[in-house]
Amino acid sequence: MTTPLLLPFALGDASMVDLLGGKGANLAEMTRLGLPVPPGFTITTEACRRFLDTEELPPELPDLVSAAVIQLETQSGRTFGSTTNPLLVSVRSGGRFSMPGMMETVLNVGLTDATLPGLAARGGWRFAWDCYRRLVQMYGHTVLGVEAGRFDELISDARTRLGAVDDAHLPATALEDLVRQFRRVLAEDTGQDLPQEPRVQLDAAIGAVFRSWNGDRAKTYRAHEGIPDHLGTAVNVVEMVFGNTGHRSGSGVCFTRNPSTGSAAAYGDYLPDAQGEDVVNGSRETMPLDELGTREPELHRQLLAHLTTLERHYRDLCDVEFTVEDGRLWLLQTRVGKRSPAAAFRIAADLADEGLITVDEALWRVDGHQLESLLHPRFADLDGQRPLATGLPASPGAAVGVVAFDAAAAVAARARGQAPVLVRMETSPDDLAGMIASEAVVTARGGLTSHAAVVARGLGRTCVTSVGGLVIESAAFRATTADGQVIVAGEVVSVDGTTGRVYRGALDVRPSPVARALEDGADPEASPLVLAVTGLLRHADARRTLRVRANAETEGDARLARRLGAEGIGLCRTEHMLLGARRELVERVVLDDRRDDALAEIEAVALDEFTRILRAMDGLPVVVRLLDPPLHEFLPDLVGLAIDAAHREDRHEHDETQDAKLAAVRRWHETNPMLGLRGVRLLTVVPELVVAHVRALARAQAALRAEGLDPRPEVMVPLVATESELELAARHIEAGWREGDPTTTIPVGTMIELPRAALIADSLARTAEFFSFGTNDLTQTTWGVSRDDAEGSFLAAYRREGILTTDPFTTLDERGVGQLVRTAVQLGRSSRPTLGLGACGEHAGDPASIHFFAGLGLDYVSCSPPRVPVARLEAGRAALHHDDKAGADTR
Amino acid sequence: MTTPLLLPFALGDASMVDLLGGKGANLAEMTRLGLPVPPGFTITTEACRRFLDTEELPPELPDLVSAAVIQLETQSGRTFGSTTNPLLVSVRSGGRFSMPGMMETVLNVGLTDATLPGLAARGGWRFAWDCYRRLVQMYGHTVLGVEAGRFDELISDARTRLGAVDDAHLPATALEDLVRQFRRVLAEDTGQDLPQEPRVQLDAAIGAVFRSWNGDRAKTYRAHEGIPDHLGTAVNVVEMVFGNTGHRSGSGVCFTRNPSTGSAAAYGDYLPDAQGEDVVNGSRETMPLDELGTREPELHRQLLAHLTTLERHYRDLCDVEFTVEDGRLWLLQTRVGKRSPAAAFRIAADLADEGLITVDEALWRVDGHQLESLLHPRFADLDGQRPLATGLPASPGAAVGVVAFDAAAAVAARARGQAPVLVRMETSPDDLAGMIASEAVVTARGGLTSHAAVVARGLGRTCVTSVGGLVIESAAFRATTADGQVIVAGEVVSVDGTTGRVYRGALDVRPSPVARALEDGADPEASPLVLAVTGLLRHADARRTLRVRANAETEGDARLARRLGAEGIGLCRTEHMLLGARRELVERVVLDDRRDDALAEIEAVALDEFTRILRAMDGLPVVVRLLDPPLHEFLPDLVGLAIDAAHREDRHEHDETQDAKLAAVRRWHETNPMLGLRGVRLLTVVPELVVAHVRALARAQAALRAEGLDPRPEVMVPLVATESELELAARHIEAGWREGDPTTTIPVGTMIELPRAALIADSLARTAEFFSFGTNDLTQTTWGVSRDDAEGSFLAAYRREGILTTDPFTTLDERGVGQLVRTAVQLGRSSRPTLGLGACGEHAGDPASIHFFAGLGLDYVSCSPPRVPVARLEAGRAALHHDDKAGADTR
Repeated sequence: MTTPLLLPFALGDASMVDLLGGKGANLAEMTRLGLPVPPGFTITTEACRRFLDTEELPPELPDLVSAAVIQLETQSGRTFGSTTNPLLVSVRSGGRFSMPGMMETVLNVGLTDATLPGLAARGGWRFAWDCYRRLVQMYGHTVLGVEAGRFDELISDARTRLGAVDDAHLPATALEDLVRQFRRVLAEDTGQDLPQEPRVQLDAAIGAVFRSWNGDRAKTYRAHEGIPDHLGTAVNVVEMVFGNTGHRSGSGVCFTRNPSTGSAAAYGDYLPDAQGEDVVNGSRETMPLDELGTREPELHRQLLAHLTTLERHYRDLCDVEFTVEDGRLWLLQTRVGKRSPAAAFRIAADLADEGLITVDEALWRVDGHQLESLLHPRFADLDGQRPLATGLPASPGAAVGVVAFDAAAAVAARARGQAPVLVRMETSPDDLAGMIASEAVVTARGGLTSHAAVVARGLGRTCVTSVGGLVIESAAFRATTADGQVIVAGEVVSVDGTTGRVYRGALDVRPSPVARALEDGADPEASPLVLAVTGLLRHADARRTLRVRANAETEGDARLARRLGAEGIGLCRTEHMLLGARRELVERVVLDDRRDDALAEIEAVALDEFTRILRAMDGLPVVVRLLDPPLHEFLPDLVGLAIDAAHREDRHEHDETQDAKLAAVRRWHETNPMLGLRGVRLLTVVPELVVAHVRALARAQAALRAEGLDPRPEVMVPLVATESELELAARHIEAGWREGDPTTTIPVGTMIELPRAALIADSLARTAEFFSFGTNDLTQTTWGVSRDDAEGSFLAAYRREGILTTDPFTTLDERGVGQLVRTAVQLGRSSRPTLGLGACGEHAGDPASIHFFAGLGLDYVSCSPPRVPVARLEAGRAALHHDDKAGADTR
Repeated sequence: MTTPLLLPFALGDASMVDLLGGKGANLAEMTRLGLPVPPGFTITTEACRRFLDTEELPPELPDLVSAAVIQLETQSGRTFGSTTNPLLVSVRSGGRFSMPGMMETVLNVGLTDATLPGLAARGGWRFAWDCYRRLVQMYGHTVLGVEAGRFDELISDARTRLGAVDDAHLPATALEDLVRQFRRVLAEDTGQDLPQEPRVQLDAAIGAVFRSWNGDRAKTYRAHEGIPDHLGTAVNVVEMVFGNTGHRSGSGVCFTRNPSTGSAAAYGDYLPDAQGEDVVNGSRETMPLDELGTREPELHRQLLAHLTTLERHYRDLCDVEFTVEDGRLWLLQTRVGKRSPAAAFRIAADLADEGLITVDEALWRVDGHQLESLLHPRFADLDGQRPLATGLPASPGAAVGVVAFDAAAAVAARARGQAPVLVRMETSPDDLAGMIASEAVVTARGGLTSHAAVVARGLGRTCVTSVGGLVIESAAFRATTADGQVIVAGEVVSVDGTTGRVYRGALDVRPSPVARALEDGADPEASPLVLAVTGLLRHADARRTLRVRANAETEGDARLARRLGAEGIGLCRTEHMLLGARRELVERVVLDDRRDDALAEIEAVALDEFTRILRAMDGLPVVVRLLDPPLHEFLPDLVGLAIDAAHREDRHEHDETQDAKLAAVRRWHETNPMLGLRGVRLLTVVPELVVAHVRALARAQAALRAEGLDPRPEVMVPLVATESELELAARHIEAGWREGDPTTTIPVGTMIELPRAALIADSLARTAEFFSFGTNDLTQTTWGVSRDDAEGSFLAAYRREGILTTDPFTTLDERGVGQLVRTAVQLGRSSRPTLGLGACGEHAGDPASIHFFAGLGLDYVSCSPPRVPVARLEAGRAALHHDDKAGADTR
């Protein structure tokens, strides 16, 4: 069977979306359902593809169009070219994928000098001239390529001349005059007039729509969205119906349910005596659907009945465009409707309750991004608020607090009972205590994966980064925005981490009821939204095989993670207990300054912290990662020490301790610390650090066991590149463990965070009992990009130039980094079939990446505690069978 | 057929090395050739493997040994256990691979109280007691496990008591006494005596050799050398012959040719009335083989005849151990002999000339490491010279010069006509001019792949790095070594880059005749060594398909590379013309300070440099790589600027220019510049730099074409990670080229130096016409190791701990980095079959890596000019067929 070039609506259905485009397929489906759709037909994407190949309309098309037009005439009772009752049609593009702003449309095709009086008989002369004006304008632009501005200028001139506030106030004579002027423009610019033969207009409009597929704007859009160039567009030719022929006419847009809250009642707007675009552009006050019910009860009843038909048929929220001409209702378009995150959950759960869809389908129709947006507090009312400064939305949430320009000030403010907002050029590990003390963090530099952003997300703090032009003079206790506004220390600001905006003063914060419900557990009085979310999360938990753990290194985080459903800790970073004030302990070990005391203190701190965390996670695995950060994070800043030394020199002061420290820091200074002495390398040079931590862990386990608890620690080695490194580290771990608890052993695993580790994973798996993919570092080395540095320099240019469309530090780069992960999984399992596999980078909380990890058969992902529900949901979705996901294509 | 457990020499041959071990197989081969080998047999590795499996000698072995001993008795005319004419045997291990120091030996097996008089009849009582003493000692240690020191002490006591200078001066009575004492030690330590049954001694010795295979020392050695544990060792049982029975006896070691020079005459040493070990341990003055010819012409004639037989048979240099007992010559061992690099070339060429081997075989028998060692000057005489300091041999050669502690001093010294040696803590791009001016570079820090090492090798300068403990006080014009010796500026030192040693004063330098010949071309009067090298290089050129290009960015380097046989420039680094004094130009472009002038100057410099290089390489490809280094290499040092600013502050001085510069450098400062704004990323942010360089290249080409020359430039984009980056860079290149020469186009390629580039090589090949593997950077990111930093911190510990046995920056890491190269080659060719493929990292000059690249089918390697001959040789060797390489196994 050859693929049809043209199909009347009555012969198509919703499944033929590739051939008819989205709009045409849905028009056919509605026709098939017996809904009142104006008669019409679709010229298929096949015809477009042939047109694109040969640059001519297929030779058989004219006869097919002729036959279809005759059928249209029969169905409508009007005749193409009739001077008394002319048939007019709209010609619109409509492809497989929606391409907003790319759509080419010519309305009122069939109107000529000869047929104009017939149209005037239907709705009056002003209506008729307005229709004619639109046809000449659209034909001129779309078919003949006249610049749109040429017509806009003339309309604008006419409005000015006549003092009309908008086009609707232009009288018939002015519109008649505009038609004349427009036709003169056509003659001047193209040497042509509007064809006075309806069929010539129609054929030209069809060709123009096809040609528009290869226009620059369309090509750029497709390249950006990844829509293949060979698909082509369909063209829908539909009888024109008019909502602007009088008070018994009108146009509206409505939804089968509330797309904002999800509540189960039709929702929409109606505008009497108007065309569809008037409803959308907001130039006139619309009436809610209920009011239509009062004014036109029969019309309202019909419309609601049709909406019910559509929702039961499509088994989802639908939106509909409709027009009423002289009391008769026409449906012009439908599609599965867009909705807010809250509505998505509520509609999915309700449709499942109503038996329209399965719970699996309901789960597939919500996603982690939607859930995440429901978990953060919001500002209650931002209308009319002008932001003080804008940056990147680095960690969502809404926070109000007093400005502090350094970590110490933030800690002090918290101690005074205030809620601080830490404002810095950028943050470093030194700022950790200040960040913990703060409600929000704002930085002038750094991107979505800067230190500030990553740590804030991990801590669940609101964060805005990359506030361009912000100059901070912390010594003067003030900052200045790019446009010269001054912020002083102690001033109250409101930070919106969801939009990246910072406001002066305290805005009202509305906490997230969903987050509260997830943290606090079941509540029989909960709102329908909370019930929908918890219900779908429960279903996701039942479905998923991928376990969800949390990255947590404090007792509080561990408890929160557990309440949010974490099934263990996949990453407990030991460095967190050694940054801030305790940083000096590592410095003393490395620089050999009262070393044994420092080691003893490191062990004591670790024993206390490990005991708390293991107690909080009793019965669940806790993966402790040995010290990982670049060495310089533990050492004093070289530039600062050098400046101090210069000042001492000028003052002829001597300080041997500081001089020695400067010399030592110079000696240990690295040009590229990220590629330097860190992770297993540091542990090989200073194995005492491993032994201290592992011994503490063993003692913590022993103490908790003595209490009758069930602690389940594991140890993980970071930054491994060779088998020998891992073997040596494993020997140090074994030795430390034996000293702490000779009666048991400890599972040892490795991070896979260097390309080489992935490439030799079979060898590593001979020593490692589990792998954990550290996809942040793996992305850094696979791309050769330091996330600390890149945001401020070239990543902005890369986004501007379209070199990067997604951030590889946010969503796993499947082609590059993902290939290495896949390789490591295969190699690792080939040498140890029981190998445990997890992921603990930033990506472990990212929906798309979770699906990738689930597809590889990983055992768990480990993300920051606030993202645990998101990961649970997406892990559940990833486990659905292909069939359950099929519905997604129609959305 | 079951594998034999025992084989008499007469039944084996050289091919049975797996079963008989190297020594046994060669003894069998000599026997087969009719050479005078004492009769004997080999207990095979199969017997050893069965012994290792079951911990018992195979049950059928005793009968086989009995039969073999009877055969030995027949052949020797002596009887095992005879009191009048006893047969004695040696029992020695001998595996597939030589394991020096692992060998277990028991001599004189068969000697007992009863057979001793029979042996005394053969060589006197002193001789007999000495043999007995050795048996008890070796049996006690090897079989019974008595500590060797126990015997050494007793001998030492005896020497002291009798005032004997060595064992040879101990009289028979002392030896008799020692036998008694030794047997008392056996009794005390083990409760056993030397068995008085010869066969019991023999079986015990065989078992002890087998057991020694699993001794700690042997296992460690095998693990280090990668020798499989399951191979097992063979045991050779050979009739004892004695070179110490009088003046008509003696022992010697000789070679079929001179192993030092390769000249074609037998070469060796003889020691009358001595055993083999006396020849080797140097305790007595040996006589050269010629002198033996004068003293014992018949013996000498026989020996030379045997040597000729061996060399013709083995088709290679052989070494031989021999013993003369009472005028009768015995050959005890032979193997293909070790030789110096010069001898390797000369012998291979001579054997091919003599028709003993093919030229292909000759080529296979030499290698790039040998050639490289022949290309550098050496110090004439180092005997008795004590080094001032020792570091890593970073770039070979011998250089004498005056010490300069900074680049400016080195440049000034050169301007005064002196030859400077630059001594620095470490070098940076700022030191380039100083390095060019210097004969040698010595650094306290940095390893074999530090900036100093890499640049020095590229420039062909002698270099020693990582001189531990060297403290340089450049302000005081002096340095101090770890042991407190002071070196002052201007002092003359001699630097040996081949050994890593630095000497005080001027040593005699002997230039390399081979290097001179290769640079200057054919010389009919050349030495045999030069003729051998040039002949084999010519053959390598004829054989190889892998082309050899050079990394060169100056006209001089290009000309040198061409003289040394380079077939183009595979890497012309544009940054080299912008470091040193011109660094400021890039700084001005980036910091936007008189930017247009700076760009114009950059273009003018490039036009001049490109024109020179293209002219020097007329007719050959020149691949120009766009600006690559980390940005900080072009900007002033942050620490230095900050210190200056602190001093200004203290002096209440103001300098707005410097303050602005400090602020700008702080803004552009990167924590990890290697992973920051560099390569294509910088070019995307500042495309004017691309345009300036490419336009200059186009103009250079046009100018040379106008002269009738044939310039062949290509352009290469560094640090690409995504398709879009490369496409954008290609557009900038095209634009720049069009401005410079609209009549032609330029081939554009990309570096593959990030893991992601290798993983998406199929996409990159759609834009890139060629790939060049930058294996330095690829190793850095694949391993997550910065070569600048690692040497000083953990790499030393890694070598000490055995974590790294080879340096991945020297020899390509085939498992990790090599896998990425392989992937990129496959993917790249899959999308562009005509894709050009080259390698231009440090590895391109490393022999093992060249074979890897050749195996992947790369088109070319590109190395520093001095390494071009090495690469030509190895590329030729890599092209040989498997059969030609087979001979390698016997060496």
